[in-house]
Amino acid sequence: MHTNTNSWILKGMICYSKSKEELSVMENGYLVCCQGICQGVFPSIPEEFKSLPLTDYQDALIFPGMTDLHLHAPQYPFCGLGMDLELLEWLENHTFPEESRYCSLDYARQAYGIFTEDLKASPTTRAVIFSTIHSPATKLLMDLLEDTGLATYVGKVNMDQNCPDFLREADAHAALEDTRQWLKDTMNAYRHTKPILTPRFAPTCSAALMEGLGKLQREYGLPVQSHLSENLSETAWVKELFPWSSFYGDVYDRFGLFGSGKGNNAPAVMAHCVHSPREEVLRMKEKGVFVAHCPQSNTNLSSGIAPIRSYLEEGLFIGLGTDLAGGTNLSMFRCITDAIAVSKLYWRLVDQSAKPLTLEEGFYLATIGGGSFFGKVGSFEKGYEADVLVADDSLIPRPQGQSIQNRLARFIYLSQEKGKLIGKYVAGRKIF
Amino acid sequence: MHTNTNSWILKGMICYSKSKEELSVMENGYLVCCQGICQGVFPSIPEEFKSLPLTDYQDALIFPGMTDLHLHAPQYPFCGLGMDLELLEWLENHTFPEESRYCSLDYARQAYGIFTEDLKASPTTRAVIFSTIHSPATKLLMDLLEDTGLATYVGKVNMDQNCPDFLREADAHAALEDTRQWLKDTMNAYRHTKPILTPRFAPTCSAALMEGLGKLQREYGLPVQSHLSENLSETAWVKELFPWSSFYGDVYDRFGLFGSGKGNNAPAVMAHCVHSPREEVLRMKEKGVFVAHCPQSNTNLSSGIAPIRSYLEEGLFIGLGTDLAGGTNLSMFRCITDAIAVSKLYWRLVDQSAKPLTLEEGFYLATIGGGSFFGKVGSFEKGYEADVLVADDSLIPRPQGQSIQNRLARFIYLSQEKGKLIGKYVAGRKIF
Repeated sequence: MHTNTNSWILKGMICYSKSKEELSVMENGYLVCCQGICQGVFPSIPEEFKSLPLTDYQDALIFPGMTDLHLHAPQYPFCGLGMDLELLEWLENHTFPEESRYCSLDYARQAYGIFTEDLKASPTTRAVIFSTIHSPATKLLMDLLEDTGLATYVGKVNMDQNCPDFLREADAHAALEDTRQWLKDTMNAYRHTKPILTPRFAPTCSAALMEGLGKLQREYGLPVQSHLSENLSETAWVKELFPWSSFYGDVYDRFGLFGSGKGNNAPAVMAHCVHSPREEVLRMKEKGVFVAHCPQSNTNLSSGIAPIRSYLEEGLFIGLGTDLAGGTNLSMFRCITDAIAVSKLYWRLVDQSAKPLTLEEGFYLATIGGGSFFGKVGSFEKGYEADVLVADDSLIPRPQGQSIQNRLARFIYLSQEKGKLIGKYVAGRKIF
Repeated sequence: MHTNTNSWILKGMICYSKSKEELSVMENGYLVCCQGICQGVFPSIPEEFKSLPLTDYQDALIFPGMTDLHLHAPQYPFCGLGMDLELLEWLENHTFPEESRYCSLDYARQAYGIFTEDLKASPTTRAVIFSTIHSPATKLLMDLLEDTGLATYVGKVNMDQNCPDFLREADAHAALEDTRQWLKDTMNAYRHTKPILTPRFAPTCSAALMEGLGKLQREYGLPVQSHLSENLSETAWVKELFPWSSFYGDVYDRFGLFGSGKGNNAPAVMAHCVHSPREEVLRMKEKGVFVAHCPQSNTNLSSGIAPIRSYLEEGLFIGLGTDLAGGTNLSMFRCITDAIAVSKLYWRLVDQSAKPLTLEEGFYLATIGGGSFFGKVGSFEKGYEADVLVADDSLIPRPQGQSIQNRLARFIYLSQEKGKLIGKYVAGRKIF
């Protein structure tokens, strides 16, 4: 028995992104992990690793874990509800009333218990998560997530204006005190779970609140998550609320909540970016801001389609998000196919110069694209943290035989009906 | 023990469409079926039905079965493959080579065996299905479908030009002889499985072939299925091949393959209608042609989005189709959510006067909309054939409690991950 369970070898049908366009495939390959870090993929076990414990997954597919770059844990209980509404009505009718329930730790324990169990079983190995304004429930969520072994950022939500009384922080000062205490309580409390600053979105945050959050960001060097340019009514509202801003993202940037330049250790991730003007895109590039592309949510809430091809060409950091419960499905496999699907409609209906996403590109975004928010994550190249999924596709009928690439494609498209994950590792830790 | 198993009562949480806009809901209601025909839904069992056997499904949802108005059985083995291609390339690279395998009855038995088992387990109670050009394999498929107890139309495909040698009928004469023999063999051979004339699509059918099929239609009074105005390259090609036609559908109509007027017993169903010009829509209305709206396929193959709101306003007959394997999912629940999703993007990106489909409308299209191709099918109102699904949604977490309408909505959105069908009936016959 090996003493370090974060060092191992997995054998099987291995696929991972070599680049945005190209998949690397090795049949009956060996993926070697030492102390949670990938050492590479080999056709036979190199001499130096022969003492490591081996798990032979035989005909199963082995590929990198997926990062869900944007989702709301407290919204899980009402996934699939209110899907006939647009963003602002949906927030008012479903989201805000549901989120207010998390002032009860009993309710939070029940609801977050379901959420974390399901997230653990899903293809997601890492996630960047919104909770609610409630610090106790947020800490509970972080406790539960830590127990899953997944690697996550979790944000206690800040909102002190333009939201119902029952879901509003008393004022900027109280919000900031509460947030500071929550940060102190959680910053070093976990191994895999970290806090992230989370102004809900510009309309619900006073200038005083955002200014204070910017200070906290600089004081603690924290990453930031929020929403950006999701819906046309929302962007018009932001312009009205912050008339001095050059564009929506400029509001966050003015308060130091929009990243601090490429390669920084505390990046920002902005969900949606469906209606970002050119200046906003350039600012995101300059500041190294990540786009969390949430295709299903943007469809469900009739927001539109983010111009993902142009973001790729611009060289932005991009990952995918399920955006529960604007998106209804926890599965990152579904998220990949949704991203591909809407990119085809964008090409057909909006801009015929914007080539649709390929499967390889969708896979890249779900693995390396979003994984980069966590560092070297999402690939099996030497030096990457070993996040791994093992997929049994034997229930997907293929009477005619198929290549590994095709098996991967079909698993991604059909996993909700026929796929089964039989192994999951995060930074080398076996989750199941 | 009752002798007539097609007469029964089901108890549970009953929902069905009252109209396109309105859902009828009865908690702890009784659905009464006599000889396969619905007698209505009651709050308590009417005296006259008290002797019928009762199945109490308790807290489960009970709603009408769904009609898949367009799918290709032989394409099931490669669902999820080639999704980065457009229609004509996809046909050439994946569809035609796969369909050619069905010249082997051994292959057909294996592949159709998987398909029919999965269709039986799916939410589909009725379907209108393409097979391939091969009569023996088509008969085998019909045998297997008959065994499932589902109600289906199955079409041996006709194609004698513009397709590879390995998947082409020798000539119009041979094709028509083969088709006539197939019709004789199958027309009265089954209780629930019926033949339907199936010119693949205009480009692959010579004028002589279509003229002969029109004669067969009139001789036997058969329904017809085909494809229409799916893709822009395809519609341009049809214009080139049939320069005399006023529009794509005019080609079918010229040969008597486009329905024969409203209320006729042998209607036509045309898949897609994404790019139908106004004259085509009017002709469809005049002839009572059904639209099989296939939202996922039209997205996957980058065809576009059918203007479903305007078809609804025009009063066309409309149902939904999965279009396997242009669509990758067999589930009609998924098909409903896809139809709603693309209608939102159409509204946002193409025509802001085209209101998105509501959940109620999507549900209507999947039940009564497509069911109407089979007669009085898709509702629980008195006189409708009793096609029923019983759904266990207990795995869909709802810590906050929920109305029946909301439970139905969530089941439809989340069924692929969390839903379970526990009962299925077609015209009163228990399938499982």
